[in-house]
Amino acid sequence: MMEDVRSAIKEANQRFMNAFKAGDAAAVAALYTPDARILPPDAQMMEGAEAIRSFWHGAMQSGLTAAKLETVDVESSGDLAYEVGRFALYKQGDGGEIIAGAGKYVVVWKRQNGGWKLAADIWNASTRAPA
Amino acid sequence: MMEDVRSAIKEANQRFMNAFKAGDAAAVAALYTPDARILPPDAQMMEGAEAIRSFWHGAMQSGLTAAKLETVDVESSGDLAYEVGRFALYKQGDGGEIIAGAGKYVVVWKRQNGGWKLAADIWNASTRAPA
Repeated sequence: MMEDVRSAIKEANQRFMNAFKAGDAAAVAALYTPDARILPPDAQMMEGAEAIRSFWHGAMQSGLTAAKLETVDVESSGDLAYEVGRFALYKQGDGGEIIAGAGKYVVVWKRQNGGWKLAADIWNASTRAPA
Repeated sequence: MMEDVRSAIKEANQRFMNAFKAGDAAAVAALYTPDARILPPDAQMMEGAEAIRSFWHGAMQSGLTAAKLETVDVESSGDLAYEVGRFALYKQGDGGEIIAGAGKYVVVWKRQNGGWKLAADIWNASTRAPA
């Protein structure tokens, strides 16, 4: 049962990465619950599918080409689960993709209609950005 | 039932604020589960009571005098709950306490031995820090 949740989350993260790489912000946003919240660093928290689509669209427009998500831990109770993980964001450099930022995250997942969706998504950097 | 969880979390947050104001990092750390994780901005994730005590002790030593926690939303399922909130950190200024930093957080709470404890605690700033 616990393994099922972990697998479902792993699959959803793979869909997140694929959609991001495809530059498809709407497909990324569709992985969240309709009233989900994202809490990006150095920005106000945002709520709802359109705000989330718009945020990720902006991130892609700013030059991010890919996101890598790596699960560290998952625990669940009923229709709620949380994931602790590490991420890296990539952009195009002169000689190929380079890391634009890296850090860690907590995602709260909710089971809705049999599938697991992101309900709250917060992240931050693991080292201080150069000034 | 949902209201009970929200009340319990509100009480635990009040204990957090009281312990912080008293400069008692051990009392702050005691509000977390023994294997809890904290994910502070611009730092690696840390795990376990001693790492968490040491982190908050360092924050107090650096001059932080108080933390204010304000719950925005709580949802729960069984022995797991999550809270979305806003925080402010204070330090001593010339004319009294001033804000040292402010932002938002997600805390994953776990029910253990009948009480709710922080199991994962992550936060970030709501505006970009001046360079």
